[in-house]
Amino acid sequence: MRNSRRGEVDPFIVMDVMEAARAAEAAGRHIVHMEVGQPGTPAPAAARAALAQAMEAGPLGYTVALGLPELRARIARLYGEWYGLDLDPARVVVTAGSSGAFVLAFTALFDAGERVGIGAPGYPSYRQILRALDLEAVDIPTQPENRYQPVPAELEGQGLPGLLVASPANPTGTMLGRDDLARLIGWAQGAGAAFVSDEIYHGIEYEAKAVTALEVSDDVYVINSFSKYFSMTGWRVGWMVVPPDHVRRVERLAQNLFICPSHAAQVAALAALDAGEELRANLAAYAENRRLMLEGLPKAGFTEIAPPDGAFYVYADVSAITDDSLGFAKAILEEAGVAVTPGLDFDPARGGGTLRFSYATGTADIREGLARLEAFMRARGHIA
Amino acid sequence: MRNSRRGEVDPFIVMDVMEAARAAEAAGRHIVHMEVGQPGTPAPAAARAALAQAMEAGPLGYTVALGLPELRARIARLYGEWYGLDLDPARVVVTAGSSGAFVLAFTALFDAGERVGIGAPGYPSYRQILRALDLEAVDIPTQPENRYQPVPAELEGQGLPGLLVASPANPTGTMLGRDDLARLIGWAQGAGAAFVSDEIYHGIEYEAKAVTALEVSDDVYVINSFSKYFSMTGWRVGWMVVPPDHVRRVERLAQNLFICPSHAAQVAALAALDAGEELRANLAAYAENRRLMLEGLPKAGFTEIAPPDGAFYVYADVSAITDDSLGFAKAILEEAGVAVTPGLDFDPARGGGTLRFSYATGTADIREGLARLEAFMRARGHIA
Repeated sequence: MRNSRRGEVDPFIVMDVMEAARAAEAAGRHIVHMEVGQPGTPAPAAARAALAQAMEAGPLGYTVALGLPELRARIARLYGEWYGLDLDPARVVVTAGSSGAFVLAFTALFDAGERVGIGAPGYPSYRQILRALDLEAVDIPTQPENRYQPVPAELEGQGLPGLLVASPANPTGTMLGRDDLARLIGWAQGAGAAFVSDEIYHGIEYEAKAVTALEVSDDVYVINSFSKYFSMTGWRVGWMVVPPDHVRRVERLAQNLFICPSHAAQVAALAALDAGEELRANLAAYAENRRLMLEGLPKAGFTEIAPPDGAFYVYADVSAITDDSLGFAKAILEEAGVAVTPGLDFDPARGGGTLRFSYATGTADIREGLARLEAFMRARGHIA
Repeated sequence: MRNSRRGEVDPFIVMDVMEAARAAEAAGRHIVHMEVGQPGTPAPAAARAALAQAMEAGPLGYTVALGLPELRARIARLYGEWYGLDLDPARVVVTAGSSGAFVLAFTALFDAGERVGIGAPGYPSYRQILRALDLEAVDIPTQPENRYQPVPAELEGQGLPGLLVASPANPTGTMLGRDDLARLIGWAQGAGAAFVSDEIYHGIEYEAKAVTALEVSDDVYVINSFSKYFSMTGWRVGWMVVPPDHVRRVERLAQNLFICPSHAAQVAALAALDAGEELRANLAAYAENRRLMLEGLPKAGFTEIAPPDGAFYVYADVSAITDDSLGFAKAILEEAGVAVTPGLDFDPARGGGTLRFSYATGTADIREGLARLEAFMRARGHIA
C-alpha cells in the first residue's frame, strides 16, 4: 500500500538502549533505570479513589470537547495558587496529554510547509509531530552559556511563524527566568510568530519557581500535563491555555480530532489537583535524588552538566570522552548495568557528545547507579 | 495571534440542537434524546473491576506505543471469534479511540494537499480531521439504491489516492455486503489508492454479520473502537489493523503523536473483550429499540428510511416535507420534546432534507419519543 512522506518520522534512538536493558533484565540482571522519563510513583491515591467511585456512579460517556467544566475551573485556580494569576477557565482546554495539546496547537496555528523554531537539544517528539503535520522543525542550536535555551538573536532572519520553548526543559532541566522568557515572547510578538510554551515540568523545580509564559502575556499558547508533577503519565491527560480569541477554533479542532480526553482520566486528574501532600512527598524524593546526582555525577567524571533547575534530568556534555554517545550508552549499560539516554534523540547535530541521566527512579537505585557509574568511569580511565 | 487556514474546521450544526435540548431540560422539561451517538450503558462491569484492581496493583505508566501486548493479542483473537480470521497480533495497533486511529492512518498514508474520498452522508469528523491535516475530503454523493454506500463507478477519474468507507455506516446504519466491499477494495487497489475501512459499529448488527475488509484483503487499514459495541465511549480506546509492512511506520507515528493510548482504558478494554453476556444484553436492547423504530417511524410519517442493518441509527429522507432540516429539528425539539439530528452535519449538499434518529437511548424513552413524533407529525398535517 502507498505511504506518505510525512509519515517517515525518525525512530527513537533510545529504543535500542531500552530494548537492550529489557533483554538484560530478562536474562536476570539488575539494571538501574536512568533512561526513563516518567515518575515511578502511581497516580495520587485520591485520584484513584475518585475514579473508583465515579466508575460505579454512572457511565463515563463522552465529555464536552474542552473537558469537564469543573476540571477546567480547578486548573484555572491552579494558576492562582502557583503563580498568583487570575485565569479565565474558559481559556483552559483539557487535552489527551501534552501530546494531544501539541497536535491541537500546531494545527490551530500553522499550515503545511510552515517553519517552527525549537531549541536543540529538545524533546524529540516536537520535531516528529511537526513533521507528521507537514510542518518543518527548525533546530535552534542552544548554548551552555544561555542555559541551553534559545535567545532572540538566534531567531532573527529565519522566517519562523512559530517558536516553541520549554522551561524546565527536557533533556537539560534548565529554566527560563522571567526576563529571558519575556525577551523571547517579545521577539515572537514583534515577528508575528506564535509563541508556544511547554510547561509540562512545572511543579518539579528546586531552587526557584518556574515562570509561566502567562505571567508575561495572554497572547501565548501554554501546554501542561498531569503526567509529571501529578504522576499520571499513562493516563494521558494534560491541558492547554490559549488566548481568548482562539478558544472556539481549538474547541472545533478538539471535537473532531479527539471528541474528548479520556473521561476516566479527567475524573482522576480533578482529584489529583488536591493531592498536595502526596505530590510534595514525590517532589522531596526527586530533590534528594537530584542532590545525590549533583554530588555523584561530577565524582564519576561527568563534570560538564547543565544547571538542573527543574524536571528530573541531568544533561552532561561528554564530548571530551566520545563523539558516539549511542555506543557509549551501550557500554555503560553492558558494563555498569545502568541505562542512560544518548543525546542524539534530543540534538541530532551535537548529541553524539552528550548523555541524559534521569533521576525519576527510586533513591536507592540512584545511589547504586552513581556508584556503578563511578566504577565504570574509573575502569575506563576517565577518572583517577 | 496568528491562525492557520487548516484550523478553520466547521462547527457541528447539531451542537445548536444539543444546546437547545440542554436548556429545555434545565428549564424542567423532559426531552427524549434521539440525537446522541453513544450507548447509555456504562463500560462492562468486568472492565471496571479490572481497572479498579489494576489501579491499586501498580503505577499505570506509559505502555508501549502500539498498546499492551496482551490487549493486542486478545483483539487479534476477536477476529477469529467474529470472522473466523487468523490475525497476527503484530498488525494490531491500539489507539486513542477511532479518532486517534484516523489521525494515525491519514498521516501514515497521505501528504498535504492529497484528496481522500468519503461517502456522503458520513461521519462529520472525517471531513474535519482531513482538513486539519491539510488533506482534502472529496464527498461521494451516495444513492439510496446503493444503500447510501459509494460504488466504484462514482470514484473513477477523481484522482483519489485514498478511499474511506464505513459499514455499518453513520448516519445511515447501512452495511456493505462482501461483494460490494470487495468491489470497492478492488477499485482502490487497481487505482493505487489506500483503502480505509471504518468498522466502529461492528458487533451492533441485526440481520447479518458485518463483513470486515480483512476478509477481502490484508492490504487495507481497518479501524475499530471499544466505544460502541463495548460501550466505552468516554474511555477513548480503539484499535487499527494495518498491513504488515505498515506496522513500523505507524508505530513511530504513534510514539510521537500519542506516546500511548490511556493505560487505564487499555486495562478496562482487555476485560471488556470477555464481557460477552453483558454486551449481548445491551445489543438485545438496541434490537428491541430498532424494532420499535421500524414500526413507529413510518407510522409517524417517516417512511423514506435507509435499511438500518447495524449501528443504532435510522436515517430518514424528509425532503418531501422540508429542505431546512435544522429548522425542522428545532421544531421537533420545541414542540415534541424530542432531540434529533439534522442531516446537514453528515451531508452538506443534501442534508437539508434528512434527519438522523438515534435509538441508543433506553427503550422506555424510545416508546415515548415515537409517540411524541407521531403526535407532532399529525398536528403538522403530515399524517392523517
